[in-house]
Amino acid sequence: MAQRTANLTSTKESFTDVLIIGAGPAGVMCANALNLAGIKVRIVDKRPIGLAAGQADGCQPRTIEILQSYGLAENLLKRCQPVWKSVFWNPTPDGKLQRTAQSPTIGAKSARYPFGAALHQGGIEDVLLESMSEHGLEVERSTVPTSIELSQSAEDIKNPDAYTAKVVLEHFDRKDDKSEIVHAKFILGSDGAHSWVRKTLGIEVEGDVTDSIWGVVDLVLGPATDFPDFRSQAFIHTNAGTLLTIPRENDHVRLYVQQSENKDLVDPKTGRVDKDRTSPAKLIEEAKRILKPYRLDTGDGKVTWWTVYVVGQRVATRYSINDRAFIAGDACHTHSPKAGQGLNASMGDTHNLAWKLAYVLREWAKMSLLKTYETERRKFAQDLIEFDKKWSKLFDGKPWSEDNKSGVTHEEFHGMFTTFGGFTSGIAIHYGPSAIVNTRYQHLASNLTIGERVLPQVFIHAASTIPVEIQDLLPADTRFKILVFAGDLAVEADKARLYALAEELDSPGNFVRRFGRGETGTGKWKVFDVLCFSSAKQDKVDYLYFPPFFRPHYSKVLLDDSDLHGRSGGGGYAKYGIDEHAGAIVVVRPDGYVGMVAPLDGVKALNSYFEAFLI
Amino acid sequence: MAQRTANLTSTKESFTDVLIIGAGPAGVMCANALNLAGIKVRIVDKRPIGLAAGQADGCQPRTIEILQSYGLAENLLKRCQPVWKSVFWNPTPDGKLQRTAQSPTIGAKSARYPFGAALHQGGIEDVLLESMSEHGLEVERSTVPTSIELSQSAEDIKNPDAYTAKVVLEHFDRKDDKSEIVHAKFILGSDGAHSWVRKTLGIEVEGDVTDSIWGVVDLVLGPATDFPDFRSQAFIHTNAGTLLTIPRENDHVRLYVQQSENKDLVDPKTGRVDKDRTSPAKLIEEAKRILKPYRLDTGDGKVTWWTVYVVGQRVATRYSINDRAFIAGDACHTHSPKAGQGLNASMGDTHNLAWKLAYVLREWAKMSLLKTYETERRKFAQDLIEFDKKWSKLFDGKPWSEDNKSGVTHEEFHGMFTTFGGFTSGIAIHYGPSAIVNTRYQHLASNLTIGERVLPQVFIHAASTIPVEIQDLLPADTRFKILVFAGDLAVEADKARLYALAEELDSPGNFVRRFGRGETGTGKWKVFDVLCFSSAKQDKVDYLYFPPFFRPHYSKVLLDDSDLHGRSGGGGYAKYGIDEHAGAIVVVRPDGYVGMVAPLDGVKALNSYFEAFLI
Repeated sequence: MAQRTANLTSTKESFTDVLIIGAGPAGVMCANALNLAGIKVRIVDKRPIGLAAGQADGCQPRTIEILQSYGLAENLLKRCQPVWKSVFWNPTPDGKLQRTAQSPTIGAKSARYPFGAALHQGGIEDVLLESMSEHGLEVERSTVPTSIELSQSAEDIKNPDAYTAKVVLEHFDRKDDKSEIVHAKFILGSDGAHSWVRKTLGIEVEGDVTDSIWGVVDLVLGPATDFPDFRSQAFIHTNAGTLLTIPRENDHVRLYVQQSENKDLVDPKTGRVDKDRTSPAKLIEEAKRILKPYRLDTGDGKVTWWTVYVVGQRVATRYSINDRAFIAGDACHTHSPKAGQGLNASMGDTHNLAWKLAYVLREWAKMSLLKTYETERRKFAQDLIEFDKKWSKLFDGKPWSEDNKSGVTHEEFHGMFTTFGGFTSGIAIHYGPSAIVNTRYQHLASNLTIGERVLPQVFIHAASTIPVEIQDLLPADTRFKILVFAGDLAVEADKARLYALAEELDSPGNFVRRFGRGETGTGKWKVFDVLCFSSAKQDKVDYLYFPPFFRPHYSKVLLDDSDLHGRSGGGGYAKYGIDEHAGAIVVVRPDGYVGMVAPLDGVKALNSYFEAFLI
Repeated sequence: MAQRTANLTSTKESFTDVLIIGAGPAGVMCANALNLAGIKVRIVDKRPIGLAAGQADGCQPRTIEILQSYGLAENLLKRCQPVWKSVFWNPTPDGKLQRTAQSPTIGAKSARYPFGAALHQGGIEDVLLESMSEHGLEVERSTVPTSIELSQSAEDIKNPDAYTAKVVLEHFDRKDDKSEIVHAKFILGSDGAHSWVRKTLGIEVEGDVTDSIWGVVDLVLGPATDFPDFRSQAFIHTNAGTLLTIPRENDHVRLYVQQSENKDLVDPKTGRVDKDRTSPAKLIEEAKRILKPYRLDTGDGKVTWWTVYVVGQRVATRYSINDRAFIAGDACHTHSPKAGQGLNASMGDTHNLAWKLAYVLREWAKMSLLKTYETERRKFAQDLIEFDKKWSKLFDGKPWSEDNKSGVTHEEFHGMFTTFGGFTSGIAIHYGPSAIVNTRYQHLASNLTIGERVLPQVFIHAASTIPVEIQDLLPADTRFKILVFAGDLAVEADKARLYALAEELDSPGNFVRRFGRGETGTGKWKVFDVLCFSSAKQDKVDYLYFPPFFRPHYSKVLLDDSDLHGRSGGGGYAKYGIDEHAGAIVVVRPDGYVGMVAPLDGVKALNSYFEAFLI
């Protein structure tokens, strides 16, 4: 894209807190989160309309949990095709196909949503676009940036209120004000693998393009298809190549057809894959060949989307310039799509970034908080690419046979699928120690890993016995959740200690009142939401047992007990590894990750934790 | 309301299939169901706007299931206050109050939704009004009927296509066409306890007004309230009177305050209760007196709704004139509201009626089908009033004490609450044998009671292992569901028998093709939805094991197995009392009630069942 000098005399100028360039998964996740947080945000995209089909094709369990924290999982689940089962096919010695194993698609036992949610990328984006729209924010389409200027003033850079970026936009669909100069405090480039923002900011990528080439076809199969596993995810390794099939919404199936040996696909002049050198019909023919002796009936023959791609495995060397201009999503990392990670990693990036931007813009947190975006997310991307290298190798390999003893055995492939289930589901994503991840008291909640998301668990409201999933008490509302596991309120000593803690938390010198930005006496805080969980059973205590500090509303006090029909709840302390009497205080970050654990007499340690980054 | 002679020369005349008079719970349930079924329906109401607060206050579990069969439970559940726990308070010998028991509010173990859904009547109506509106139907408000003329021609009466009712409507909010003559094939009076339609049709009511008088107040309590059970349903019996409290949406609480000894409430001239003789403040004062020594803090003092009523226990002697003009809801039955039955009984009435009207209007069923509306629903209303008499007596009684040995003991009251839990939840509603309820083969599905709703149970899709609640496979789409419990398809004999059944069902002489109104070969029928459930486990069979007749779409064949994470499903055959090999065919009526069970070789018996009422 050519750089262009704006004609300042006639060009409209405007101001925003955050300008997001690129309305793919990373961009819309960020825009929605900032918009809900009340931050002044704009988002632009070069495409004139949203995606109608194709591209990425699903949400992993952790991404569904993240969407739920914005109240959006229901909308996603209505539209998607859940994928529960994965099956593995390999050749028999006599060259036929046999199903060698079947497994849950999601191996992570703690997944709240124990399935993949298959849906084309545009459908997933729509879930966020609709939320944005309900709250007054639209993507400005047919809009491209043509230049970025970043302030180099050290003073500006450390002032969250300074407009450090000047971006010239061209609006192709407007009659007037086609050019616009936008002054933004922060900018985000979420403009894909070939990111113009990344290049313009001069950020390098490390890594390589591989020689792994794949074709992808989305279609609806006809009734003569006799392969039994098209409504499961099917990994089909044969001597004729590898085929991956994924069931999709509206009865669609996606076929990933290995093309690595199809040298014709590469344009000898450019050395690049040329989509014009194949067609959906050719890809389907190859899929049919792989699937023999099973029949693949192409139904009405209509293909709703298709593409060909070469796998690249690359990560950006840095994720920001001065913590004022950021990149996220495919602009930061590319890898093979067959472990279903791209869209999920992208949305995870900006879910991580958005609350930090909000805190800095509100001047609630120090600028240094923003550094944790790169440390947390780049480490994850590097892990992802390491995983992808191993996975792709097995994926692309010919199956083991008597004639090919260096081939991939079923056990190798299936073993890796199982081993990395936690990682690929997003459930096991782990952020290392930092200003916002303090592992000192991990032993007080031994199974609630600090740096990971909160394990799903049902508790019951003390006042009503209504069961509630704890993740639903941890919405992405930019508040830190202070979860007080109070011990057993039917025991006098535990109760007395909780009253002492209430007094301590309510005193002006400690973190709740120092950093909480609340109205004293209302029990409500902008920065914190305090929830209290007793290990007592519902027939032993009532909600008035909790000190008034913990119950500004009756919904803030809960019990670790099963609901009255015994269908859910109970065993939460044990699941989290928290002692039923000693208890613990668990700090959950606004993005749902455990930031710290402390003992009930550890308010000072919590003061130190929050002092490090809050203002 | 005065009768009025329409001026035929200038009055607009119009035609509709069904005219519904009264847009309360019974009316909107019927209108929504008929509208979704594609029946030409109009609904009028005298109120200029919907209810903003008050009146009935919740849905019982079966009503939530019914709403779910129209896809509407989610909308209800978002708005309501779930009520899980009921607590019972009684006086101590020294005149204080003690909690004598706590129980699940819903005792019916098989309830899919094991709680009450507390929400003011207008909110519940809105769920249906929004569904109607999405499908193009609005209530015509400020509209009253002024006369009804019914055709007495025997030929008309038996012709479903004849316009047998002529109703004059007055539209008070219109400028033109304020009067209108509507010719309707069928009319429904769902215009409340004082039903003008019922009176105009000359239908009598049996039963009495009791001397049980109650005041009702809806309000939000203040923080000084120290009674621990306001977020549960609380039955409080004291020597100072009886108080029932119910938690409500938006932190409201409803108080039912006994007024039976408050003779001042009755106007000596009319003998009727006069609302002007009390006030919310007086009712609250009485509640405070009953609740002592606990404090009831009235917060900001704002009462959102209140009323006073006398319990009547009456049922209409008949529910229709010639099966052409019907009444439903409070027009048919009145009783005390404290078992939470009125709105639920009303919605159950028209859920029962709507599909029958649709079948007759489409000329798919004989007129005689309509007779089952009265037999099924009037029997239920009579049972309800019998129950209510017992319940009200205990409710109104003074508590047992040394001085009042004829008083109501805690054990009596709590025992009755528990015993009748199935009935009050609506789960145990049972329709007796009739043309559409055939109990001959009950033993083949011993726990799936014929005449009752289908027990909730999760099965998994054979093609994908996706778990699904069977009730969600039984939507109120006016189709009869033919549930074929096929035995174990991993067993050759069971599989062979299923192939034989497929052939039989697909033959022209049998009920599917005789009455199904489908396109042969597509596997789709307007009258039937055929679903097949095997007792085989997911690792033993795949969906191609089912004969093609049963799988026009892969979603039609299921397994009785748990999902791959073991969180739901499995044990369905055992729960239903169906033999894992012998199987059974279960016919579910369009309203979700089991109509018949037959053996897998009992197609002839099914032919006879459907012949009796289908055309």
